[in-house]
Order: sequence, then C-alpha cells, then structure tokens
Amino acid sequence: MRISILNIGNELLSGQCVDTNSAWLGIKLAENGFLVANKFTIGDEISDIMECLRFAEAKSDVILITGGLGPTDDDLTRQAVAEFFGVPLDFSQELFDKMADYFHRRGIPMADKNRVQAYIPAGAKAIENTCGTAPGIIAENEKLKLYAMPGVPSEMKAMFELSVLPQLKAFNTAGTTVCRKLKCIGIGESSLAEKLGDRMLRGRNPLINCTVSNSVITLYVIANAENESKAAAMAQETVEELAADIGQYIFAMGDNDLAETVGMLLTQQGKKLATAESCTGGLIAKMLTDIPGSSSFFEYGWVTYANEAKSSQLGVSSETLASQGAVCEEVVRQMVRGAIERSGSDYAIAVSGIAGPGGGTPDKPVGLVYIAAGSKERCAVEKKNFPNGREVCRIRTATAALDLLRREFLR
Amino acid sequence: MRISILNIGNELLSGQCVDTNSAWLGIKLAENGFLVANKFTIGDEISDIMECLRFAEAKSDVILITGGLGPTDDDLTRQAVAEFFGVPLDFSQELFDKMADYFHRRGIPMADKNRVQAYIPAGAKAIENTCGTAPGIIAENEKLKLYAMPGVPSEMKAMFELSVLPQLKAFNTAGTTVCRKLKCIGIGESSLAEKLGDRMLRGRNPLINCTVSNSVITLYVIANAENESKAAAMAQETVEELAADIGQYIFAMGDNDLAETVGMLLTQQGKKLATAESCTGGLIAKMLTDIPGSSSFFEYGWVTYANEAKSSQLGVSSETLASQGAVCEEVVRQMVRGAIERSGSDYAIAVSGIAGPGGGTPDKPVGLVYIAAGSKERCAVEKKNFPNGREVCRIRTATAALDLLRREFLR
Repeated sequence: MRISILNIGNELLSGQCVDTNSAWLGIKLAENGFLVANKFTIGDEISDIMECLRFAEAKSDVILITGGLGPTDDDLTRQAVAEFFGVPLDFSQELFDKMADYFHRRGIPMADKNRVQAYIPAGAKAIENTCGTAPGIIAENEKLKLYAMPGVPSEMKAMFELSVLPQLKAFNTAGTTVCRKLKCIGIGESSLAEKLGDRMLRGRNPLINCTVSNSVITLYVIANAENESKAAAMAQETVEELAADIGQYIFAMGDNDLAETVGMLLTQQGKKLATAESCTGGLIAKMLTDIPGSSSFFEYGWVTYANEAKSSQLGVSSETLASQGAVCEEVVRQMVRGAIERSGSDYAIAVSGIAGPGGGTPDKPVGLVYIAAGSKERCAVEKKNFPNGREVCRIRTATAALDLLRREFLR
Repeated sequence: MRISILNIGNELLSGQCVDTNSAWLGIKLAENGFLVANKFTIGDEISDIMECLRFAEAKSDVILITGGLGPTDDDLTRQAVAEFFGVPLDFSQELFDKMADYFHRRGIPMADKNRVQAYIPAGAKAIENTCGTAPGIIAENEKLKLYAMPGVPSEMKAMFELSVLPQLKAFNTAGTTVCRKLKCIGIGESSLAEKLGDRMLRGRNPLINCTVSNSVITLYVIANAENESKAAAMAQETVEELAADIGQYIFAMGDNDLAETVGMLLTQQGKKLATAESCTGGLIAKMLTDIPGSSSFFEYGWVTYANEAKSSQLGVSSETLASQGAVCEEVVRQMVRGAIERSGSDYAIAVSGIAGPGGGTPDKPVGLVYIAAGSKERCAVEKKNFPNGREVCRIRTATAALDLLRREFLR
C-alpha cells in the first residue's frame, strides 16, 4: 500500500513554520509497515492542491492531507477535496451543532467564520477532532482513499492515532505489522551494521531499520505476518537474536531515551543522583528534569562553570586546579565526591571539558572531555574527544556521562 | 521568480531523518525575497525524480534539489538530471582530480565508488563543495535553472550561501531585497498584529512577516527595490517606525536569541549572572552556556530541585519553605539573595514553580511559576501561569526569567 502525504499551508513554504507533521507521520507509518511514496508541501491555492492531488493519485492508494481545514479564507482543503472528487460541499447541521457545543462548553463565543467548518464534500464522512474545532474528512472513490486532517500538530496526531491509523490498518490487506524498537549506545553505526550482517538486508522480514541521533542508534524491528500474534512472535525472535548478539549496547527496548532509562533504573532501585557540570552547563540536569516525576531521583545539581565555583561549591582542591587545570581526571573525581557529600545522593556524575570554539590548547584541544560517575565507594572516569562543534560536544558529553553511570552502577 | 524545492532520499520518507534542509532554504529564500512555490520529498527512484521535475518545471523558474549526489547506488540525482535535460553523463577529469586531492589531503583512501561523483550531465556546470566530496550541479535550459546540492545539511548550506544564492540574486530581475529582523517578547501575536495594523497587509512593500516560537515573536521586514541601497533605506524606515511603536517589546534587531541578547548586555556592562533554578532544572544555565564564551558572564548555577537543596545550597529559610511552600514569592527572593551572596555575581535569576504534570493543588495549580531577577540592592519578582504542559512551562519560565533580568537591570 503506497501512501502520499500532502501538507498544505503558505507558512510551510516560507520557512516560518517547520513541518514536523510529515516526519511524525513518516515514523508512525513506517512503524506500522506502510510505505510513504511522496511528500508534498504546497501553498493555500485550490489549483495547486488539485494538481498535487492528481499527481499523488497516480502513485498512491491513500493520500493523507494535513492543514487547510481552519475557518479563515486561506483554508481551502475542503473546497479542493470537493472539486477533486467532483462533488459539492454540503452543510452539516450535526457538525455545526457539535462545534457550537465545543465553544459553548469553553464559554467562548463562536465566530461566524467557524460556520465554514461545518461544510463537508458530499458523500464524504467527517472525522472527529478531539482537540479542536476542525473536523477531518474521509473521502474515497474506487481507486483512492483520502484523509484530510488539521495542520495543528496536537490535533493531527490525536486524529491520526484515534481514527485514521485504525482504518489504514483495516484497509491494508498485506497483513499485520508489528514494530519493536531497540536503543543502543557505545557503538558506531557501521560497526553495528557489521555485527548485524545479513539481518539488515532490505527484503528481509522482519526488516531491521536503523536511525542515529547524538550517538544513540535506534533499531526498528518490523515484522509483517497474516495476523498480529504471528507478527509479534517473528519480531520477538529477531529481538532475542539481537539481544544475544549486541545486548551490551542496548539500553532500552521501547521509546525511552537514555535519561528516561537512567531515571527509571534509579527509581526502581530507590537511588538518588546529583549532577556536577562544567562544560555541559546544566544540560545534564535539564535532560534529567525533562522527565515528569524526576524529583524522586534528582534533588541537587551544580553548574560550576568557573574554577572558583568548583572549589567553593564542590570542594575541588585549588591546588589540583592550579597544577592540572580544570579539565583532568582528578577534577571530575573531586566533583563527584563533593556532589555526593553535599547532596547526600547515592550517585553523582561530573563532567569537565573544552566545548569550544575557544579555550583549546595543543595539550587540551577543543573537544577534550573528562566524565565521571561514582558512588561513595568508587568512581569511574572516562576521557573522551568530541571535536565536532560546541553543541555536538555538549550533547555527546551529557549522553556519555549518563551512559557511564548506567553501565557502571545501574544495570 | 518562483522556486521549487525537491528533496531526494528514502530516509526522508520513512521519517527516520527529519528534513531540516527545506525549512532552512525556505527561510533563506524568504529573507531574500524569493517565493517558494512547492516543496517535494521523494525517494531514490529515477522515474519519481523525473516526474517530479516535470511537475515542478511547469510552475517554477528555478528548481533547487537537495540529496542524491553521494557515491552509493541509491544516489541517482546526477542520472535523473541528465535524463531530464536529455543529455548524457560525462566524466570530468578535473572533478576526479579535485576529489582525489580531497581524500589525499585527509590521508583517507578514496573508494572506487567515489568515481561516480566525477560524472556530470553534459553541458552542466559543477558547483564546488567546500565541506565534502560531492560537487553540486547547475543545469539549465531556456525556461529553467536547476541547482542540485548535497543532502548533508552542512554541505548544502555552505554551497547555497557561497554559490547558489549569489546566482539567484543576479538572476532575479525583480530588484533587490533586503530583510531586517526584529525580535519581540512580552506581547501576544494578535495584540502585536493590532498595533501594526495596515503594515501587515500582504501586498505591502516593505512586507512584514511574523513568526512565533515560545513567546518570542520575530518580525521580518522585507523591502524590495531596484537597488540595494534603496531597499535598505525602505527597510530602515519601517524598522524605525516599528521601533517607535513597539520598541518596548523589541529585545534584538538581528539573529540573536534572548539568552544571547542577555549575554551580550552582561558582557558589554562587565557584569556577571548566577542562576538558581527549581522547576526549570538547569534549562536556564543550559541556554546561557549554549553561547560560546559564556564563561565571561556566567560562573555559578544551582539546580535546587529539592527543598533541602534550596536551604543547604542557597540559604533559603526552612521556615519559609514549611509555611509557604517552595512555590512563592519569598522563596525566589531568597534564592536570588543566596545565589548572589555565594557566587559574588552582580545579578541572579531564580525560578520556582509547578511544571507538572503532577504536583498541582487547587491553590497552586500546575503551571504556576514565580520568577525573580535581582542584584544586591533590589529584586524584581513576577508571578506567571504557564499551564500548557511540562515542556512549554519550562521553556516559557526560562524565557520570562531572562527577559525580567533584561528589562529590570540590563537595558
């Protein structure tokens, strides 16, 4: 089954609004075994929308539209869909009443402009919008199914998951797809591909796809079979093979990122973590506190950007700083010790490095980083080199520090 | 002049790779007064590329391609462009030698696969790639100019700015465009639009465009005239009108974000800032230390997520915490005082709030935040409500805190 995605809106062309909808849809569709044939982004013009629909029709079984369902004059998806299927737009009292009720319950007056959202192409069905006013549209003919969803990401996502995806699955006669995710760290993409060998071949079922982001590799195991339990069993078999072969690199099975995995392990084990950051400047604490409920495992963080802050706040020895500089093994060890002593936490992680672009020397070039993770009893230190720019250096340092704690103390 | 953007790559369809190139190109083109007519994303298939080129040709004067110029078998842009213009691919010894030299200088052996990158459609010209091996392609006929650039964002961006954009500007007979940016905070989009009135009308020259991201509104003033000095003067006139009308909301003219603006003002004034964060959990320190050279104005940050951390690290009174809770005016005042005393910084900002989803009460609902900015002499406090989810709450809190410091102490 081939699917085309059509994003409608002038704001998507001017670069003023980054289209995150189609990437999100691409991932969701891939996870469910659907193929995206094309993506189009076009402005709010009926003739452009029509032309694009005809182009997409020739190469897809399904067209997903996002955008252009709002109440203003430049929202033209309804009209274009009606014209494309050669039918008029009909007023629906039911849709109008639902919308009036939506406004009424929120105590907001409904503008006259909203009335247009109660029109729908003749013969098409409305899709309920659980997060906003604009209903979606399902229209079809013998060759094609078309789903139009709002452009607002929260509304589109809810409508896709609740209404559109279940229909696509039912419509798909090519069996059921199950997708499992494995997240890996500590190995490069090409080394991992070598270890996986033939299992990454394109025609394989289960198929293994792979994405890389900031040293984290996500493997997607996508199994297709005539029913769900068979597909799940096939996916599980491959997941177990992978766990046996590359288990030491896998930190999560599912959607959790590395900070969430660390947070979950800390919570399960009833332990607390403190952070002592120099070059990452608060990024590690930020990643941990992105997680709802992080106060159960995280209480204290220090950003000791200056040497004096390292001494006064964490008790790092001024002699060590004077003789060895701030970027060395001994300093991150002392930062860990100080953070544990002052916070009473079970563990601490500490980082110190040269994120750049300034501050490098021949001995200590930009990108050099020391990371430490420790408990009262012992401390593990790693020296790393992340020379590809300030932002990359900071993210990779934070990731490496969280992973060091995970490997050495939590698993 | 109408421009179509064509992104080529299977990885862009599966959602495994978010297309940031076309958003970046959209902004750059808009800033220079060009109109994007369509964006297409298609897979690595010659027939699809050809069909899309024909579709785009009908509605554009220029087609910009990204992707498909690499050395592997699924990189098919070269072949597709040659077929589209009806010419063969020619081997270029000059391109081959340049590529061999690129590898030689880096001490990397050149793979046989790379040879294909030295082929170019007959009659087309190569565009130098200053950041990688794949040269770009310029091909044209009487109706159309086509530029093919690599898909790797760093390579594409350098090639566009150094080679493609100057050609587009020269090719554009519709005059010269100058774009000025104003960044605003502290006012909503619709209120701002009301204040700007007719100046936001679509046909106006200079045109005023507007984007919103996390309470920051960016206004683009885009002036078009027969030469650069005239366009610059027109843009300047509108900028001055805006400065007179909405000056109190403008924090930057140009690309600086709010943290960069705060950092620049601190540096200019030779002052230092410390951070004391509860609900933002390190985000404010992270935003400040994203800036290269931030160690000149930022030395100390605390993430006091637990009440005990607020007391032991910043000297917040346990009685205040017990009687009024952590989310109140008095606590953020004491956090500012403690951070200034302990760091010796000139200023501190402090935040405490309920980011959610848990932790809300009828008196103190999720989204309630106190922010404070102060010096030794005085402290400004604001009570805010950011109820739209944990992430939004944290970003808006950090932004509001930086802006409070800017308004009360730095400007």
